[in-house]
Amino acid sequence: MNARLPSPETRVFTPGRPLPLESGASLPGVQIAFRTWGRLNPRADNAIIVCHAFTGSADADAWWAPLFGPGRALDPERFFIVCSNALGSCYGSTGPASPGPDGRPWGAGFPAITIRDQVLAQQWLADALGIRHIRFVVGASMGGLQALEWALMDPARVGAVVSVAASASHSPWCLAWSEAQRLALASDPRYRDGDYDPADQPLAGLAAARALAMVGYRSPASLAERFGREGGEGAPFAVHDWMRHHGRCLGERFDAHAYRILLDAMDSHDLGRGRGGCDAALASVTQPVLVASIPSDALYVPCEQIYLASRLSRAMLVALDSAHGHDGFLIDADRLEPALRRFLVEFGRAGIPEPVLSPVPTGTPGLAELSHV
Amino acid sequence: MNARLPSPETRVFTPGRPLPLESGASLPGVQIAFRTWGRLNPRADNAIIVCHAFTGSADADAWWAPLFGPGRALDPERFFIVCSNALGSCYGSTGPASPGPDGRPWGAGFPAITIRDQVLAQQWLADALGIRHIRFVVGASMGGLQALEWALMDPARVGAVVSVAASASHSPWCLAWSEAQRLALASDPRYRDGDYDPADQPLAGLAAARALAMVGYRSPASLAERFGREGGEGAPFAVHDWMRHHGRCLGERFDAHAYRILLDAMDSHDLGRGRGGCDAALASVTQPVLVASIPSDALYVPCEQIYLASRLSRAMLVALDSAHGHDGFLIDADRLEPALRRFLVEFGRAGIPEPVLSPVPTGTPGLAELSHV
Repeated sequence: MNARLPSPETRVFTPGRPLPLESGASLPGVQIAFRTWGRLNPRADNAIIVCHAFTGSADADAWWAPLFGPGRALDPERFFIVCSNALGSCYGSTGPASPGPDGRPWGAGFPAITIRDQVLAQQWLADALGIRHIRFVVGASMGGLQALEWALMDPARVGAVVSVAASASHSPWCLAWSEAQRLALASDPRYRDGDYDPADQPLAGLAAARALAMVGYRSPASLAERFGREGGEGAPFAVHDWMRHHGRCLGERFDAHAYRILLDAMDSHDLGRGRGGCDAALASVTQPVLVASIPSDALYVPCEQIYLASRLSRAMLVALDSAHGHDGFLIDADRLEPALRRFLVEFGRAGIPEPVLSPVPTGTPGLAELSHV
Repeated sequence: MNARLPSPETRVFTPGRPLPLESGASLPGVQIAFRTWGRLNPRADNAIIVCHAFTGSADADAWWAPLFGPGRALDPERFFIVCSNALGSCYGSTGPASPGPDGRPWGAGFPAITIRDQVLAQQWLADALGIRHIRFVVGASMGGLQALEWALMDPARVGAVVSVAASASHSPWCLAWSEAQRLALASDPRYRDGDYDPADQPLAGLAAARALAMVGYRSPASLAERFGREGGEGAPFAVHDWMRHHGRCLGERFDAHAYRILLDAMDSHDLGRGRGGCDAALASVTQPVLVASIPSDALYVPCEQIYLASRLSRAMLVALDSAHGHDGFLIDADRLEPALRRFLVEFGRAGIPEPVLSPVPTGTPGLAELSHV
């Protein structure tokens, strides 16, 4: 892997104790890479947690730039904004390419993790940062799954949730897309279920997996508008060049087994697990939730968000009007920003009481344990 | 390949001269495997041509059983029904696993073919069978592309067309799905661009390609209804078992490079090529066309068929109401049959003149050259 390193501003949080995983296993030596923007106020109640998508990083100001800035939903002058690299990824947080207990990369030995495990790691980071109240947790795609889990896992601390292009549980359709990517990865014999040298990635399999994923991230109209049936340079059609390019690019910046671990984590997503099913879990969410749906989304299809909104007691459902499919949450992020601000105004108007401050967490490491990468 | 052999009823047509391909190349030693049902009447004007989909065979009575039978659209007591295995496939017609000029399998040396090349081979077969008028050409998916080409390539002989879940040209979206399958295939190093022993297939790549294709053939609702998030036996989820099963099954019955050659042929599909674009090509179609659209089709999305119907001068657009996506043309074929019969009645009522008989083709081989496989 010729990984795109985390940006220089990225810091690393080291809890100093093993992370208990939902599977019953525990993960030693955990590190969580994160970035922050703005300052935590004296009441420690102006935090916003941003959760990134599948192959994203903590650099939310880069990949969600239209949401950031003075007067915008993610305003560092008003809020203390935190984004961390997901557990299992490869941008500074512990994942399968990280050193395992024997000092060598975890590889195939990295344990299965779930969306809840990822959120637990984020909670520990919020504890360490001294955050007593979170104005809202916002995320799209994998980040949107995490945002919903946050509402259920930390109900006292999370004031609101913004979940974009996500679902209550990973649908059989999404499970199938994940599996297609796993099979593409596994058809490269160099993958070896994760037992490869991270410096020598199974590039063909990873590229094939990514190229097919790119299809699901877009829409028929998006590809038609952008490529038509134009001829390509390295391939018969321009759309093929584009897919191959994205396949190659991911190979240069991502770890193949981290890709697999995160696919598995998304497949684990089920708000209803251990909570009496999704209907009951959603009914128990007390926070206001902005549910944003992309009508052209071919992956997290709109009925998923309609379901969410129909079962949540305080949901606002908005359409993010993008022709670009699932990737609309990035490509047309500028259209998401006003919806997010409108939601914040509305739920402000609705007379949400002042945040109830959580007690300062005990037994968690303090800021002293934060260090630069 | 442990190919499922063509059924014993399959016969083989050997034109005895090279097939001129659209690319300018010509294909020597061509064989076309075919089946027939019913008898050609003395006027030689009661033929129906059935075109199969991607990995299908000439055994139309097996894969489209609900359309066959007395009183049904494909009634062997009234019609002379012909279905041939597509050029480039591996069920008896010439494809990359067939012997090339040197007696060894063509493999990577097999030339690129187009949908028009496939239809030309079918035309030669129709000539050889003495068919002077074709009541209608019917096909779905790849077969639906061929059916539309038939209307344009043989306007004097084709009375009507039934095109199901197809399009005027292979859309960038469909091009992208094809490419994802090619990349999955190519990530198996045993594939070697088609240079492998047909008895020793690149099974991992072919299985991965097929498994992902299966996703596109279904729909979110179909997978949700059938699998939910049920646990699997060999995989975490039942839907994964299903995909792997279909991947394995195709490996047992299909040739990997034939799969690739047919993907390329479908990608070539463009009714407008050399005809002044799709609008002009469709406007020049004189025959009545039944355009059947599957609302849940994730691959040949409904706007494709709406476009076809909007540009054809005599189109009837019907919805094949299936929740199962593209595969609805097989899974819910029983719903297609009445639509097809209604179309035949309607276009009969519309006062279609008696078929103009094409001259008996000259210079083409006769039935004597037909032989059993």
